[in-house]
Order: sequence, then structure tokens, then C-alpha cells
Amino acid sequence: MTHPTITPCPVGIQATGMRQERDSMGQIAVPADKYWGAQTQRSLVHFSIGTDHMPLPLYHAYGIVKKAAALVNAAEGRMPQWKADLIAHVADEVSTGELDAHFPLYVWQTGSGTQTNMNVNEVIANRGIQLVGGTIGSQTPIHPNDDVNMGQSSNDSFPTAMHVVTLLELEDRLIPEIEQLSATLHRKAHEWQAVVKIGRTHLQDAVPLTVGQEWSGWATLLDDALKNLRHAKDALLELAAGGTAVGTGLNAPQGFSKAIAARIATLTGRPFITAPNKFAALSGLDAMVRASAGLRGLAVPLLKIANDMRWLASGPRCGLGELILPENEPGSSIMPGKVNPTQCEALVMIATQVLGNDTTVGFAASQGQLDLNVMRPIILANCLHSIRILADGCKNFRVFSVEGTTLNRDKLAHYVNGSVMLVTALTPEIGYDKAAAIAHTAMQENLSLKDAALKSGYLDGPTFDRLVNPLDMVGHGTGGA
Amino acid sequence: MTHPTITPCPVGIQATGMRQERDSMGQIAVPADKYWGAQTQRSLVHFSIGTDHMPLPLYHAYGIVKKAAALVNAAEGRMPQWKADLIAHVADEVSTGELDAHFPLYVWQTGSGTQTNMNVNEVIANRGIQLVGGTIGSQTPIHPNDDVNMGQSSNDSFPTAMHVVTLLELEDRLIPEIEQLSATLHRKAHEWQAVVKIGRTHLQDAVPLTVGQEWSGWATLLDDALKNLRHAKDALLELAAGGTAVGTGLNAPQGFSKAIAARIATLTGRPFITAPNKFAALSGLDAMVRASAGLRGLAVPLLKIANDMRWLASGPRCGLGELILPENEPGSSIMPGKVNPTQCEALVMIATQVLGNDTTVGFAASQGQLDLNVMRPIILANCLHSIRILADGCKNFRVFSVEGTTLNRDKLAHYVNGSVMLVTALTPEIGYDKAAAIAHTAMQENLSLKDAALKSGYLDGPTFDRLVNPLDMVGHGTGGA
Amino acid sequence: MTHPTITPCPVGIQATGMRQERDSMGQIAVPADKYWGAQTQRSLVHFSIGTDHMPLPLYHAYGIVKKAAALVNAAEGRMPQWKADLIAHVADEVSTGELDAHFPLYVWQTGSGTQTNMNVNEVIANRGIQLVGGTIGSQTPIHPNDDVNMGQSSNDSFPTAMHVVTLLELEDRLIPEIEQLSATLHRKAHEWQAVVKIGRTHLQDAVPLTVGQEWSGWATLLDDALKNLRHAKDALLELAAGGTAVGTGLNAPQGFSKAIAARIATLTGRPFITAPNKFAALSGLDAMVRASAGLRGLAVPLLKIANDMRWLASGPRCGLGELILPENEPGSSIMPGKVNPTQCEALVMIATQVLGNDTTVGFAASQGQLDLNVMRPIILANCLHSIRILADGCKNFRVFSVEGTTLNRDKLAHYVNGSVMLVTALTPEIGYDKAAAIAHTAMQENLSLKDAALKSGYLDGPTFDRLVNPLDMVGHGTGGA
Amino acid sequence: MTHPTITPCPVGIQATGMRQERDSMGQIAVPADKYWGAQTQRSLVHFSIGTDHMPLPLYHAYGIVKKAAALVNAAEGRMPQWKADLIAHVADEVSTGELDAHFPLYVWQTGSGTQTNMNVNEVIANRGIQLVGGTIGSQTPIHPNDDVNMGQSSNDSFPTAMHVVTLLELEDRLIPEIEQLSATLHRKAHEWQAVVKIGRTHLQDAVPLTVGQEWSGWATLLDDALKNLRHAKDALLELAAGGTAVGTGLNAPQGFSKAIAARIATLTGRPFITAPNKFAALSGLDAMVRASAGLRGLAVPLLKIANDMRWLASGPRCGLGELILPENEPGSSIMPGKVNPTQCEALVMIATQVLGNDTTVGFAASQGQLDLNVMRPIILANCLHSIRILADGCKNFRVFSVEGTTLNRDKLAHYVNGSVMLVTALTPEIGYDKAAAIAHTAMQENLSLKDAALKSGYLDGPTFDRLVNPLDMVGHGTGGA
Repeated sequence: MTHPTITPCPVGIQATGMRQERDSMGQIAVPADKYWGAQTQRSLVHFSIGTDHMPLPLYHAYGIVKKAAALVNAAEGRMPQWKADLIAHVADEVSTGELDAHFPLYVWQTGSGTQTNMNVNEVIANRGIQLVGGTIGSQTPIHPNDDVNMGQSSNDSFPTAMHVVTLLELEDRLIPEIEQLSATLHRKAHEWQAVVKIGRTHLQDAVPLTVGQEWSGWATLLDDALKNLRHAKDALLELAAGGTAVGTGLNAPQGFSKAIAARIATLTGRPFITAPNKFAALSGLDAMVRASAGLRGLAVPLLKIANDMRWLASGPRCGLGELILPENEPGSSIMPGKVNPTQCEALVMIATQVLGNDTTVGFAASQGQLDLNVMRPIILANCLHSIRILADGCKNFRVFSVEGTTLNRDKLAHYVNGSVMLVTALTPEIGYDKAAAIAHTAMQENLSLKDAALKSGYLDGPTFDRLVNPLDMVGHGTGGA
Repeated sequence: MTHPTITPCPVGIQATGMRQERDSMGQIAVPADKYWGAQTQRSLVHFSIGTDHMPLPLYHAYGIVKKAAALVNAAEGRMPQWKADLIAHVADEVSTGELDAHFPLYVWQTGSGTQTNMNVNEVIANRGIQLVGGTIGSQTPIHPNDDVNMGQSSNDSFPTAMHVVTLLELEDRLIPEIEQLSATLHRKAHEWQAVVKIGRTHLQDAVPLTVGQEWSGWATLLDDALKNLRHAKDALLELAAGGTAVGTGLNAPQGFSKAIAARIATLTGRPFITAPNKFAALSGLDAMVRASAGLRGLAVPLLKIANDMRWLASGPRCGLGELILPENEPGSSIMPGKVNPTQCEALVMIATQVLGNDTTVGFAASQGQLDLNVMRPIILANCLHSIRILADGCKNFRVFSVEGTTLNRDKLAHYVNGSVMLVTALTPEIGYDKAAAIAHTAMQENLSLKDAALKSGYLDGPTFDRLVNPLDMVGHGTGGA
Repeated sequence: MTHPTITPCPVGIQATGMRQERDSMGQIAVPADKYWGAQTQRSLVHFSIGTDHMPLPLYHAYGIVKKAAALVNAAEGRMPQWKADLIAHVADEVSTGELDAHFPLYVWQTGSGTQTNMNVNEVIANRGIQLVGGTIGSQTPIHPNDDVNMGQSSNDSFPTAMHVVTLLELEDRLIPEIEQLSATLHRKAHEWQAVVKIGRTHLQDAVPLTVGQEWSGWATLLDDALKNLRHAKDALLELAAGGTAVGTGLNAPQGFSKAIAARIATLTGRPFITAPNKFAALSGLDAMVRASAGLRGLAVPLLKIANDMRWLASGPRCGLGELILPENEPGSSIMPGKVNPTQCEALVMIATQVLGNDTTVGFAASQGQLDLNVMRPIILANCLHSIRILADGCKNFRVFSVEGTTLNRDKLAHYVNGSVMLVTALTPEIGYDKAAAIAHTAMQENLSLKDAALKSGYLDGPTFDRLVNPLDMVGHGTGGA
Repeated sequence: MTHPTITPCPVGIQATGMRQERDSMGQIAVPADKYWGAQTQRSLVHFSIGTDHMPLPLYHAYGIVKKAAALVNAAEGRMPQWKADLIAHVADEVSTGELDAHFPLYVWQTGSGTQTNMNVNEVIANRGIQLVGGTIGSQTPIHPNDDVNMGQSSNDSFPTAMHVVTLLELEDRLIPEIEQLSATLHRKAHEWQAVVKIGRTHLQDAVPLTVGQEWSGWATLLDDALKNLRHAKDALLELAAGGTAVGTGLNAPQGFSKAIAARIATLTGRPFITAPNKFAALSGLDAMVRASAGLRGLAVPLLKIANDMRWLASGPRCGLGELILPENEPGSSIMPGKVNPTQCEALVMIATQVLGNDTTVGFAASQGQLDLNVMRPIILANCLHSIRILADGCKNFRVFSVEGTTLNRDKLAHYVNGSVMLVTALTPEIGYDKAAAIAHTAMQENLSLKDAALKSGYLDGPTFDRLVNPLDMVGHGTGGA
């Protein structure tokens, strides 16, 4: 069949029952309305485990990889142009999600991801065959291995797709949400930059700061984590494609590595390059570990922020009560009128899950053996899981909790006025030991700080008033002294 | 509406568009073909995060809890019998999965699980109303809080359902699979109890043992883990129900705790009892931590077994090659004829995930605050996830890999005959130092052990043959000396 | 040298400089004032890593194992009685710590612990030689391998010593401290069983309970964890001794397994038995994993308890302020008079370390390979580390914080009187929806609950007073309704 | 006492018994021969937990911080120059380790590190007093709080010292060792760049590569991890000093932040700067989390490399046997002549510990509360622990194992010649399916690949010889195709 032409037809096979597909192990029946072939079916038979399916965004990225490979193969004269165009056409359908229903495999499969690579190869082959009027399952004129997989192995194409999908998910799904959450925190910090509140260290009353300063700290923790994540994701730009089976590039033509990386860069608009050492790229997944560490780096401050927020909002009458969170839903099935910091709780759980996922990723990545790490699906699944729940969780946390948070200014002022720790402002004048004595007196005799100070005789009223002024104690800005 | 009667009708609401539901915060529109009410809908609005839905088996267990509560309430005269019967009727539909489509909530929600409890309450109320010909959404004659939730809080009913579902999943789903895997390992161990092979410690050649002994060790590791898991699950038998909001049992009648535990025991056929201390039961989730540790206790030997099997099957020509695993599918998209230990790989990934899930659970359980632990959904989801993938993974590992594994007896004999470490059998006769000298000679001069022994002059041929007999060296049975 | 007699002499070698020792690899110089031999010295040369020394209690347990082995060997006629007595004599010195200075090795050594086993063998041999007037380093009349190690391999004796030391550390060091902490918590719970306080769920005001009920929950969490730990430690009673190199018991006489376990049982007063399957006992360390999980099981509630205590003691003027912790030391280098919940903080850090140690143990135990797990030193070190810091930490926490904790009864009463959540007591009378409306009114109009209730018109004053009585709301005891 | 002059005297107090020291809580007796004061002593009383002492390098770094603070205070006229010089003099003694014996505190103490800060303050004060002939314990003319701690809080000085010590330990202790290990791996890779060997993926025979390519992969994994660690450590350059108690900089003069960071930069020769947001710097420890993730990033490939090396060296006669590791010590107490990959084992344990330590760090850092993270000692101790054992472990691994590793070229050639997977080279010529058929024939009939290929009739001998040439199959260099 030379120069077959594409006859557009909608995605889908109008057939019922089963059809026979074959691979190097022989024939096997597959559902007639599905594009997948023998190896996908064998995986379904042997690996229907749990409910964790390989994440769909991986397939969308795999479409890009397959398209790039086909175009490079054609450009180098190893594949006729019509065939590359056909593969590219179907690969686009894969990338846009039109063929999602044909990628049924589970996370718990071969550790190399070969079955998912073959699933992609088989679907592209059969859909391509359909588009040029061939017989589905005939492997002609498009063969899943010889054509769609040309110049590739699962061992290099799967980590290539892993890097592509993880980078895209980070850049397109997660980072924008973190930026928005950070912006909201900064906005609130700015709004409340002059509202004095009591500080708390060791959960005990400390010297004052402003609400804005406190929030600026949260925002900065998030910004720093984001900066680190941006750096971490750069390691994903190096692609394994061109290493084929063990890193030597056997069966791929010289130059394939750079060419396919360049194609993928063009197709995605991101500066992907070829990994300088393919043996490392196949036997390790360390860039994924670093990405996961970057995700943990977000989870750590998010846990802290969400915890702080719910404590500061505790009450309404028997807690700290400084913050008032939006009331989104009834909080209790038994206690009428109860409202709970549920967005904080969801975010805390999400962050905790990310910590656990990261443990899994680090352990899994350490288990590479000889020339291949076969813990790929678990590493990918955990990273994409963390990205997804962090992104969605941060969005909801922002929209349904942070943005609508307000201050209980009475409570804030009440605490500042009552605290004994303003005594610290006396230290430069009277020394630590005398100041400590005043503080003890105030607490033991239940006096106001001023009364205790005057009683001590160490200083007079006007001096006290000059030194102990909460507004003066909060300094300027966020940089400390 | 007194004594309304149930008019059986199939599950499902024949309606389109939206209908209004209300709760204490007001009205909200829900899909007209769904049974859920206002609080479920609010949760969907605020907590559509990721793709992790609350596991369905939880709802099936929740049906049991709701049925038990209704029956106890009726028995104690707090609820008319017809109402309890109606709730029980619908609760059965919940338990059998007929209402699965009406439980749409996500894992990442309020940390108490209140929204899922309300989802159950709302669905039971509306389906009950439908069955007696009432108006869906009217909360009459069945009110989600006052009736379905009578005598309960989310704070006690959710952990009750957690314990019930986890116990059932362990007993009905996981343990039978572990038993079968263990039985298969024992059967193989028995079959190969007399096949001598070389031992390997530190990955280095050691003294011989039999294949059956090696496999008996694997089976025993699994048996011990299972024994431990059985003990761990017993802590799940203690139920929080009757503690209501904070453990005091407010709004539940005296005796409710024991009565509902007894009902649940009857309904499930398992010896559930009421937790002796409700404050612990609400503020901690430690029984779940112990169950998770029990799951990790399975993952640890499974990782070891799967790793050993794939190493012993490595090759076919350039590895250890002692075991031959079944060929289930082509192993490589680029290397023809390659067959890989994919079931082992899947199991290794599953076990690794379980280790990570367990880290999440332990951390989450430590984060309880004051009178409630609000990390419940994440703890439940991770435990049930581990159970599910372990169960499915062990089944596939057994059926598709262990059962069909055979021995390469030539390789096994070849190694035994070539090893120098049989020298150990000489030690009681000539002492450690002389034996070591013989071993060094054999290795350095590339001699057989016997040639090196004779060359040393420390013993003669007949003595060597008497002492160095692999069959004599493997001892008897599995208990050592 | 037949029937040499022991001439008592104090521990220590009066020599300076170096002496030559030898093993199967040749000679090496060791410090002349130390008992250790060539293999210990080689380990020091190759494994001086960090500052983590093999824990001394291990050696004390190893003394028991070596004594038991010698006595069994003598009883079975494989070793002259005088030699066994000599070994036993020195082994006692090892167990009592008199020879501690002669065990210099690091945790990071061979994964089987062989070097530590040889350290013990060498020290016992040389000290024994000294006691009978022989030449240190001559390996006569006591040879480290042929005599002290008779019937043993590191592969079975090291895990035997691991089990013995871990069990003893659990029983003698940790469990008594947990029991005392629990007793203190129970005592406080009893003392404060009638002091009403506000409950807090989701950190938000909830219905009341008593201080004693809250503390009873903490005590119960600890008791349950302890019960679980007791069960976990029983798995340590099974000993590997008698398996020798790979589990077959090669070079140990038939019956050795049971005999040595019985001896160890007698020497320790604990019901040690021989492990039924030696292949599992050598290739797995799962009993240690379970012990570690048991330690985590303590860490989880300790984290919760310490966190709760420091939050409840937060203040003194700007926090919850219900508890008053003892003031042990100045809290701040800059803020005079500040007192912090430092015992809680130390315990939280300890518990966190235990969680991390447990992750290490689980991972390590999964990494056994073929017939031996060579992650033994790391597993042992982490378990003993966790035991030690938990024991010491719980003691200090109890003595310096829990025992001296008192109540701020004014604060407790203030919260109960102000809370709106007492509205829950109205639900059985007026239903959830009306009660919720009253609660909303109270919060929005800043009314007392009673004022809001009366304003609603849903009930009158006497009814309110009858229904809303905190003392009535806390139920009876700890079992809930 | 104006302008007292330093009279040099050796470190040490010639006194016995106890002396009285005092702080704001009163008097307490301390050992008369120690420089520490009341607060150190109180910590010893309350926090003698386990055997984990605060790492000495922290104190050495703290000396730098205290010196910098004194010099800045003097330069700004807040402290007389003689006093600053005196403090600086003693701080140098602290930094060089001369006062190590006077820092006895444990890791498990107040979570802010205040007690260690006060230990430093007290020791510097008393040693300074001694040097100018004052009365030790008199706090004159040097006061631990008012002078040594001037312009500081533990809350900012402790994290400052944490960053300084961690950066120095990374740069001076760890990174040079990693560089050397990498260089050794690269040198070996270069040396063996043309030695062909069989590849192994999924542990199954795969297409060939060279030994040098395999080692280049290891070296690259390490290089990439090191590159990432270098980036991670840069976050440590931002210092908290100047934030004082809660980040506002109360009691420190304006400009202090930048001035002290500049001083520390000068004293250490590293580009330290002041943290732009002090609220983040006090309430978070995220830079430490990132450093810990960087350490994990090393542990992951080290685990893989050490595992690969020991497997490739497995044998000598019953394993893969491609590598020959140096024989450093006897491997077994029972099996004469056994040599084990003990350096690999130690490194695997070290890497595993680092994974666990990292879990602890991430969890701990997430537990910051409000304006301070009080998990500092545990975070510091785990990070420094990881650094230390990685550095020492990598050195020993390199010196005692990697450098002396040689090849078993006979084995390498034997495997290449026997493997069936060279069939992959036929695929471009005859297609995947026919190649697979040839491979199956070779395996099933136990033929050489060539015999099976000729038997198939798909190609002739000369074609086979042209296509299947291992040397041609390994490609060029490390970049793949």
C-alpha cells in the first residue's frame, strides 16, 4: 500500500464482540470496538490490579513523543512521509484526549512501562490503519513496533514521556495555582501590614508583630518553595529518547537523540534537550525524585500555613479567634451552627499525602537495577497524583478560604494589650534580669505589665510609655532589624 | 404521615435538571436525578479535588451502621418502627451497592468525614421518602439529621464505618489471597524439598540448602506477617458509635453504645464491641495505624520474595537462571523474544506503594488535635488502597507467576558442584584457618575444591568425599540444627 | 594445655604500643591494651564512618548468647567443660559491661554484623587466654572461631543477639516508663473527672466534656499502644541460633537450636524459643519490623498528647490557657519571663524521630537478598535508638511536665459558660434546624446562647435551663452513651 | 571594670566541686570546672535523654555567629570595643573546638535551640570573664544575655548557626568526597570504555553495552545529584540573624541584619546574605528541608550504584561475577575463605538511613507553629548526621572498594557471546516479529543465536555476521543515538 491517503472518520470502531489481534506470542481476542492490540490485552488479563489507571495526561504526552519520533524518522528518510504524517495525525488525536477510552491499563504493570508504550503503539497503528481504509489488526500498513515504535524502545520513550508530562503538569496545572495563592497571601499581607497582633513562639505569648508581617512570612515560604520547584523541574528537560534499549541507541540512527528532543521542544514550546548520558537516563529516574522533592517542598509550608490558619481561626468563643474564615457549609451532623476550617483540613491532608507519595518516590527510585529502573509507573503515578491534588487543593483553599478570610480586630487588640511579653522592650534599658523580674511579678500577681513595672521601681510611667509601644515594636517591613 | 408503607420502586429518580435542597445554611440546587441533598452538593462545590473518590466499600459499611442505628433507636422507642424499617430497607440498598452512583464525594473534604456521613444521611432520607411516596427534598417523613443520624455524630459514626469497612476488606478481600499465596509457596516448597542448590549470603556463594528450604522461608515470612495482621485487625473490632460529638455520648440514650455495637456484630457476623473509651476512639485513629502497620508487615516480605524470585530467574543466559517464570507477554518493544519478570515488578511496586501509604497513615494519625482527629479520610483511603492493591497484586502474582514457576535443574546442579563454599564442611575436622587456606587456593588457582583440598595435604580423598556431600550439608527440614 | 585454671585478674591489659594479631588473611597490628583481634582491627580500618557505634546493650546481650552456646557445646560433649566455663566467665564480663571499652566498632560495617560477632569472639578469646595465663593473640587455648563461635555463624548469632537485646530493652527500659506515664495520666484523669471543660473538634468550640474524660482518652491511647507493643515484642522470642550460615544448621549438632534457646531463656528469665523456620529467621528481620511498628504505635499518641498539652497550655494570656505546665527553665534568651512547653517539644521531636526511624527500618527490612538480610546493623541501631529516646523522653515528660501540670479553673469555666455549642442539647427537643438557627443568631448578634434561644421563641427559659446544663451534658464515665 | 585587658590563660578552670550560677529563675549549682552556667545546667537536669548530643560542628559555627554579632555591636557603638574583642577572642576558641568539652547538651531539648544558644552565651561569658581576671559566674563584665546575646534571640541566632554549619559541612566535608567518588567512577568508565558486556534490563539479558558506558551512567547520576545539591545549599546562604524574637528585629538596631550577615560572610569566606523575610526565616526551616532533599538526592543513586556493584560482583562461582571487588577482610565467621561486598553493604545502609532521616526532616519542618518552628534540633541533627555518614561512607567506599575493583573479562566475554538478545540487531533488517521467532527458537532448542537465525531461513550467515557484531551494537560514547 503505497501513499495511502487519510480519509477522515470519527474516532471509534463500529463493531461489537471481539476481534483477533496478534503479537510475537500469538493471537488473542480483544474488544472489537477498541483500537488496542494484543499486548494491551495481555496486560489487562495479567494486570487488572486495583483501581489505579495510568494517568491520562501521560498518554497525551506520549502522543507528542510518538509524533516527534515519526517526523524525525521521516526527515531522516527511514520512514515514508505519508506514514509519518499518518502517525502524527493520530498522535495528535492521542494528545488531545480523543482516544482516551482506548488506554485502559493500570499503574501496576511491567515496571518499564512497556505495556503502556505498546498500548500507544497499538492504538496509533490501528487508528492509522482505519484512517487509510486498512484492516484493523492487520498491522498493515502501520506496524506498532516497526513503525510507531521505530527508533525507540519503551526504555527510552517511557521516561521521555514521563519527563514531558511531568513538566507540562507542573507548568500548566500546578505552578499557576501556587502563583495565585501566593499573590492572594501577599495581597492580604499588604492589606494588613499595619494591624498589630501578638506574636506567639512555642505557642506562648511573645512580642508583637503585624498580621501583615505574619502573612508575608507565609507568602515567602511559598515563594521560596516555588522558586525551588522551578529549578527542580528544569532537570526534566533532559530526555532519554535516543537511548533505545540500554542507552547505546541501538537501532536508532545517529543523530536521532538530538533530533527528537528538538522536535519535542518545538511541539511543546519548552526547551527540551537530549540527556547527555543515556545510561543514567535509563537506569535512573532521579529528575523525577527531584521534582517530587520540589512537590514536598510545597507541601511543607502549605501544611504549616493551613495549620496556622485553622489555629488562628479557632473558636469562635473558646479559641484564639483572630481570623474569621468563610462559612461554606454546616460543620457538624449533630452540633447545629458549627462551622469548621474544612478547607484547611483538606489542604493538610493533601500535603500529608504528598509527603507520603514523596517517600514512595524516593524509595522507588533507589531500586533501579543494572541498566534499567523498573519502578517507572509508580514513580510517575505518585508524582502526577501529588501535582494534581496540590493544584486543585490550593485553588479551593484560596477561593473558598483565604480570599474570604477576615480579621477579628477586637480580639487582636485585646491580646496585644494584655500580653506581658511587651516587657522585652525594656531589656535594652534595664537589662534582661530586671525585666524578667517584672514579668514574673505581672504573672504571679495578675497585674498589667505597666502596673508590675511601676511596682518594681525600675522605671517610671513616662519611661514605660515611651519604651512599651506595640506599634514601635513591630519594626519596619519584613526584613527584621 | 403516620405508618406510611413502602411501595417498592426501582432505584433511580426519573427527573432531569436540578431540584432545590436545603440545610441549615439555606437552599442549593442539586441534580434532580440524584438522591443526595444540600450538604453533599456543597461539598462537591467546595471539594472537587483530584480524582480520589471516597472508596465505595466505605459506603457499603456505612449502610450497616445506619441500619444498626435505626434498629437500636426503634428498639429503644425513640423512633417509630416503620421509620426504622424504612431506613433499614434503604440502608440495605446502600450496602449492596445499588446506590453507589449517589455517593460522589472526594477524599479531600472535611477531615471528620462529616460530608460523607451527611451524603449517606441525605441519600437514605430521600430514597426513603421516595419509597413511601413522599416529596424528595422535603426531609419528610425522613429527616437526614434528626432521623437517619439519630443518636449519632459524624465524629462517632465515621470511625465506626472506618473500622467496619477495614475489617471486612481485610477479612474478605485480602487475607484469603494471602492464604492462597502462602499455600502455593508451601506447596512448591514441599515439591522441591530435596532439590539441592547453592546458598547465597551477601550475594556471595555460601553453603548449600534446598530449593524447598528457601521457599519455606518465604512462606514462613508471609505466614508470620499474616499472623501479625490478624492480631492487628482485632483492634478494629472496637467501635466508636455512642460517643457522638466528643465522646460523652450527648444526645444518644444510655446504652446506645453497646446496643449498636451488638447490632453491627449481628449484621456483619463479626464480634464487634463498643470501644471502652470513647474519647480515645474519637481523638485517635490508632487502630487504623496498627492495621496499616500490619499491611506494611506484608509488604516487607512480599518485596523480598518478589525481588528474590526475579533475581533467581535472571537470565536466561547471563543471569542466575535457577528459576523459570511463566512467559505471559512479550517483554520488550524493541528486543524480540525478551520475557521479563513483570509480575514480580508489579508486586514490588505495590509493596513500595504500601510502604509509602503507611508513612502517610502514621503521620496523619499523629496529627489529631484535642477532641477529634480530622485526618480520617486520608487514613481510610490509604489503608483501603493498600488492601486493594495487595489483594489483587498477590492474586495475580500467584496465578500468573508463582504457580507456573519451574526449576532449571541443570543450573542448580552446576552451581552446587562448582562452589568453593562447601569447604565449610571441613571446618569441624581441620579448623577454620586451614579450611580458609584451601578455599583461597581454590579461588586463586582456579581449582575445584577437592583438588585444592588434596593439594593442601590437610586431608585425603576419601575423607574429603565423606565430609563434603551437599546432600548431607542441607540438614533436615526447616528448623536448622 | 589441658584443664587450665582461671586465675582471676582485673579486666585490662597492661601493655602499650601495638601487638600482632592474625586471621585467615594474615597479620595486622592492634593496640596492645585492647582485647580485640585482627578482624575487629580490619573493621576499624575499613569502617570508621561517622560517630554511630554499635549500641553497647547489643554486646551485653551477645555475652548471653556466647555463654549459652559454650554451655550447650560442653553439655553435648563438643567442648571440654573447662573451656566452656572459661568462655562463660568472660561472657559474663561482657554482659555486665566490664569489657565495653573493647567493642569499638561502628554501625556502618558489614550488613550481617559479622565484624561485631568476631569482635565479641576475639575479645572473649583473648580475655579468656589472659585469665588462664596464655599469650594474648595466640588463639590458644581459646580460638575465636573454633571455640567461641562453635556451632554458630554470624548469620544466626547476630539476629539472636538482636532479638535478645531488643526484647530486654523493651521490657526493662521502655515499657516501665510507658506504664508510669500512663499511670500518671490516669491519676490526673481521675483527679479531674468532674471538672467540666469545653470540647473542641476541628479546633472549633464543641459540646462540653470533663478534663478527666479528655485525659482518660490520652491514657487509653497510650494503653492501647502499649498493649500492641507487648504483642509485637513476643515475635522477638523466636531465635535464629542453630541455623548457622544459611539456615540448614551446618556444623551445628542436631538439637543445638532448641538447646541454645532454652539456655538463653534460663539465663535471661524470658521464654525464648527456637524459631521454627531458620530460613525465614536468617533472610528476614520481620520481627524487628513489627517491634519498630510497635514503637511507632507509641510515638503516634505521644505526638498527639504532647501537642494537645502544649496547645491547652498556650498563653498565658493570649492562648487557650486551660493547663498550667511547670516552669522548669527560662524560655527565651531575649524575652524575659517567658516559659515554654519544652518537655512537650522534646517529646514531639522524639516521636518524630521514631516515625523516621521506623521508615528506615521498614525499608531496610524489605531489602533482604536471597538467603540473608544484610541490613542488620541499621535495623538494630534504629530500633534501639527509638527505644532509648522514647524511654528517657517519656520519663522526663512525666516527671518534669505531666506530674506538675495544674488547671486554670477560671479559664475552663469561662469557656464553658461562653460557648454557643451547648445548643446541641436542644436538638432532641426542637430538632437540628431550629437549633442551628439559634446558634447562628447567637454568633451573629453576639448574644449568649440563652438570650438567643429565648429570642427565637422556640422554647422558654425554664426549658432552656433544664436542657442546657453542662454537667448533664458530659455523661457518665468514659464509655459514651 | 573599664577597658579590662585579656591575660591569656589556657582553656580550663582549675576547680573542683560545684559553684553557684544564676539566671532569672534563681541559683543552681554547676560543676566548678565547667564554663557553662545556670541555663545549661537546667537543661542537663531536665533533658538528659538518650545519647544524642547536639553536634559539635554546630558550636563551631555558633562561635562565628557570636563573634560577628559582637563585632557588629561594637562597630555600631552599642558595645565597647574591648568587650567585643573579648567576646570575639573566646568565640574563636569556640570555633576551633577548644571549648568542646563545655557543650554537653542533648538534641532533645527545647525546640528552639534556646538552651544551646544559652550554653554558648554562658560559656563565652565565663571564659571571657576568666580571661580578664573576673569572677566566673558573676556575669561581670560579660553578661550572657545582655552582652553575648546582644541584638539576638535564640529564634534568629540558632537558625543562623544552623545554616552556617550545614553549609560548611556540605562544602567542606561532603562535596569533596562526592567529587572524588565521581572522579574515580569517571576514571574507571574511561578505562573500560571499550570493554563490551551484556546489558540487563528487568534483570533479563538485553543488548550489549560497554562496562565504561555502564559506569559513566553511575558517574552521571552522581554528578547530577551533586549539581542539585549545590543548588540546594545556596538557600542556606540566607540568614535569619536580625529577626530577633519573632522576625520584627525588636531590640536589634536598624541595619543589624545586613551587617551581621556581611560579617559572617567575611569570617567564613562564603557569600552569606540576610534573609529578605525574617518571618519566614523564623517560622520555617525550608532551606534545611531542601538541603535534606539534596542529601536524599545523593542517597538514591548511591543505593543504586552500590546495589549494582554487589550484584555484578556476586559469585565468585555462582553469581554474575563480572566485577572483582577488593578483599578487605574475612567475610564469614563460619565459611572459610568467604569475601563479601561489605563496603557496598555499608553504603546501602547509609543511604537507607539518609532516606529515613529525610523523612524525619520533612515531617518536622511541616510542624512549625505560628511564629516559630520549634523542631530545630531534630532537623539539624538529622541533616548533619546524613552529611557525616554520606561523606565518610563515600570515602571508604571509594578507597576500599571502587578504586580496587577489577574486571573478570572472561565472564564478560562469555555472557556477550552466549546471549540471545543480540537478535535485536536483526530487527531493522527482518522486522520485530521474525526476529522474535528466531529468539524463541534459540531459547527453546538451546541453540546459539546464529544457529537459530540460520535455521529460520530469514537470513544467511554473512548477513548475520555483518549485522550481529557486539562492538558495533554499543554505539559511540554515552549520548545514545
